[in-house]
Amino acid sequence: LTTDEHPLDYIFHPRSVAVVGAPTHEGPGGFFVGAIKEAGFPGPIYPVNPKATEIQGLTCYPSLRDVPGPVDYVISSVPARVVPQLVEDCGSKGVKALHFFTAGFSETGEEERADLEKRAVERAREFGIRIIGPNCMGLYVPSAGLSFMPGLPNESGPVAFISQSGANAGDFIRATAVRGIRYSKVISYGNAADLDESDFFEYCAADPDTRVIASYIEGVKDGRHFLQALRQAATVKPVVVLKGGRTEAGGRAAHSHTGALAGSIEVFDAACRQAGAVRVNTLEDLTDVTVAMTFLSGLSGRRVGIIGSGGGQSVLAADEAASVGLEVPVLSDETQEKLRQFTPVAGTSTRNPVDTYMGWVGGPERLVDTIRLVANAPNIDSVLLHIHFDGGAMRMDPVKRAEALADAIAEALPRFQKPLTIVARPAVQAEGFAASIAFQERVSRAGVAVFSSIVNAARALGHLLDWQQGRRDLVMP
Amino acid sequence: LTTDEHPLDYIFHPRSVAVVGAPTHEGPGGFFVGAIKEAGFPGPIYPVNPKATEIQGLTCYPSLRDVPGPVDYVISSVPARVVPQLVEDCGSKGVKALHFFTAGFSETGEEERADLEKRAVERAREFGIRIIGPNCMGLYVPSAGLSFMPGLPNESGPVAFISQSGANAGDFIRATAVRGIRYSKVISYGNAADLDESDFFEYCAADPDTRVIASYIEGVKDGRHFLQALRQAATVKPVVVLKGGRTEAGGRAAHSHTGALAGSIEVFDAACRQAGAVRVNTLEDLTDVTVAMTFLSGLSGRRVGIIGSGGGQSVLAADEAASVGLEVPVLSDETQEKLRQFTPVAGTSTRNPVDTYMGWVGGPERLVDTIRLVANAPNIDSVLLHIHFDGGAMRMDPVKRAEALADAIAEALPRFQKPLTIVARPAVQAEGFAASIAFQERVSRAGVAVFSSIVNAARALGHLLDWQQGRRDLVMP
Repeated sequence: LTTDEHPLDYIFHPRSVAVVGAPTHEGPGGFFVGAIKEAGFPGPIYPVNPKATEIQGLTCYPSLRDVPGPVDYVISSVPARVVPQLVEDCGSKGVKALHFFTAGFSETGEEERADLEKRAVERAREFGIRIIGPNCMGLYVPSAGLSFMPGLPNESGPVAFISQSGANAGDFIRATAVRGIRYSKVISYGNAADLDESDFFEYCAADPDTRVIASYIEGVKDGRHFLQALRQAATVKPVVVLKGGRTEAGGRAAHSHTGALAGSIEVFDAACRQAGAVRVNTLEDLTDVTVAMTFLSGLSGRRVGIIGSGGGQSVLAADEAASVGLEVPVLSDETQEKLRQFTPVAGTSTRNPVDTYMGWVGGPERLVDTIRLVANAPNIDSVLLHIHFDGGAMRMDPVKRAEALADAIAEALPRFQKPLTIVARPAVQAEGFAASIAFQERVSRAGVAVFSSIVNAARALGHLLDWQQGRRDLVMP
Repeated sequence: LTTDEHPLDYIFHPRSVAVVGAPTHEGPGGFFVGAIKEAGFPGPIYPVNPKATEIQGLTCYPSLRDVPGPVDYVISSVPARVVPQLVEDCGSKGVKALHFFTAGFSETGEEERADLEKRAVERAREFGIRIIGPNCMGLYVPSAGLSFMPGLPNESGPVAFISQSGANAGDFIRATAVRGIRYSKVISYGNAADLDESDFFEYCAADPDTRVIASYIEGVKDGRHFLQALRQAATVKPVVVLKGGRTEAGGRAAHSHTGALAGSIEVFDAACRQAGAVRVNTLEDLTDVTVAMTFLSGLSGRRVGIIGSGGGQSVLAADEAASVGLEVPVLSDETQEKLRQFTPVAGTSTRNPVDTYMGWVGGPERLVDTIRLVANAPNIDSVLLHIHFDGGAMRMDPVKRAEALADAIAEALPRFQKPLTIVARPAVQAEGFAASIAFQERVSRAGVAVFSSIVNAARALGHLLDWQQGRRDLVMP
């Protein structure tokens, strides 16, 4: 099955979009028109609102029926009570997909509102319209010029994110974009009244633009279908799943949020194991494992060479890596001798962790040489470099210094025989923050996985290695 | 025993300081003169270097013996081989305390260098000189105008930090300063060839300026003395300890770093339990628990009311709080009714977590009202507000908006009957970062504990509550 043949493919590639209930002024819910314009949507965009004749420079129509051309895709920002009329309008207009940003349906727990949702879906089905939502952000598909918030990258990439929460989708994109992740599709699907997580997993499994699938799920609509779809996806691609509502309190919140029935986390966990998907517990872990799956597929083992500046930081880096299951073997005498040719004796160590002056003395070349020697050491599977960009004592502009270091590392990458992982510790100063972001953008563009702590990096590497092991076990029992 | 009588008190209040081996240009090791000037040291500062006549506007002397007035405190930046001569000079000059920034002693593992360290300490003892270090950053005592790096707060505060690592001391200060922590004393003591962790614990236990003691320790010199000093401190103040070298790899790194013998983590852990000190595993936990100990002493239980914006974020906040041992009880109908008077129905929840529009709609007053209603609810022990400052869709300047929100919260604090904890999630955009820092500085100055994730906050609250429980168990067996 290729995407061209996939029955949902048309949803992700509409030829025209209408935003019904587009606010006349920017504000919550008012960003769809701007976001889609910014994303470079190639077809016509039709704002619909009886109170305006123009929105953001585009002709605005009083109702969907007044739009002159055909409309493939409708985004609904109208209040819930207007939805029945909107569905009729969509039917008569020949709309193919209807995304409800509109909330206030089954998730409220009110019977009347749940009924409204149910009837809207039934009526849409009669028209052959598929529904995304309600109570969600919908689609961000950079290759198709679709977006649900301003400021997202227009560039495409290999990661799909299937998210029951719009805010978590936004947080995930924000947190991963600076770390070099780009997206094939991000789908925020809310209450899943029609299309649900299983439909989207099946689609992403078949999608040739998607290489890694990340997901945030609060409740599963159909357990059997889900297990089948999850297995289908995880058989062909790395799949990472964050289950919201894994505690009683979280499950209650999930029910308030999307009307989801959170179910037993043990059952969900078993489904993930059975399918070969990685389950994580926090959004931070979801972003970290996604970064590892995207950039570190060449990782082959747990033996890590740690490089950084600061004796105490080296001690803690070794403790944290080792306590999360990585190995930190002593470097061979031969490797240490090579390092000692340019590493001063006082205040350093070449054993592993390598505690060095990091390119503040001798320029970035010294640090690159250090990485190369450790990466190419026989008893090391990957290098973990830890660094931070706050400072004070140095004179050189921190952003320029960070960029020079990033460029030197990027240029030298082909000479490293093992993968490089970088921990850029969180900045607390504005200059350090700017330097850190500049550094992260450059090294991640070159294909380096970046994390914000040793623990996070070590945990992500561990998840990746466990997953690889699981695959090997499956293939070679 | 009050500090006035404490035998080490003079070390923390020198009347004059000489920096021997002060570099003629800024660079590594060149920041002591500048840092002490910046810290407003009230007495004379004497740079010593035969190659200069003036350093940073101060008269520079060719040797310590050439300094005209008495010298209480000497910072040594000279190479290790020159140290024997320096100790003689200090003796004849009547110096009281000698801090060796100088490294390259026992930590190198070389017998000759270990011997040099031993002889320097013995000779100094004959002169009655106490030694801090070697291989360390020494003292940051804002009330005495002492500092070891530029850019640290000149203001004093209630937290002491006893750190075997200088870089970890710097990281700790940087990470906690933006979160409102200020310091009585920060002591970086390196190889602990003379004064060691036990001496400093005893001093800080007696120090009236110190209310909370944090510590980073790689190896303990004298187990019996340490246990006694730790108990002495933990009996009168909260004590939080991060033990570096808790794994084999970390222990090896600790030995390379400060010559420390890391010892068994089980034994160390037992010592902490016996003394009533809190042991943590990462620098992040150390900073978080220190913040909790400093700002949340009024916390009385595990029932937390969670407030934030975003359904998915609320689900995860509840999961994370509950999975780390906090309770997230449903708010009473009465509290929910009060919240519903100004919380719209669609896209929100008032159950707990409270998912609301956060002050973006209706201004900060609505959010403050929400916090107040939850804080004053009968079945809630504290409020946990989660927030982030990255954005896009809003028009108001993010820094101004963050400041207005912080000011409104600070102003309303006296009306909250329970403690408020805030999670400011890490920013990934420069504007969001600036807004977050401005927000954190304002609310923490008002006495609010700030964390970077729900998990971190929940874990710190858990440590604090466990510690309180332990104290109650001790007092009322």
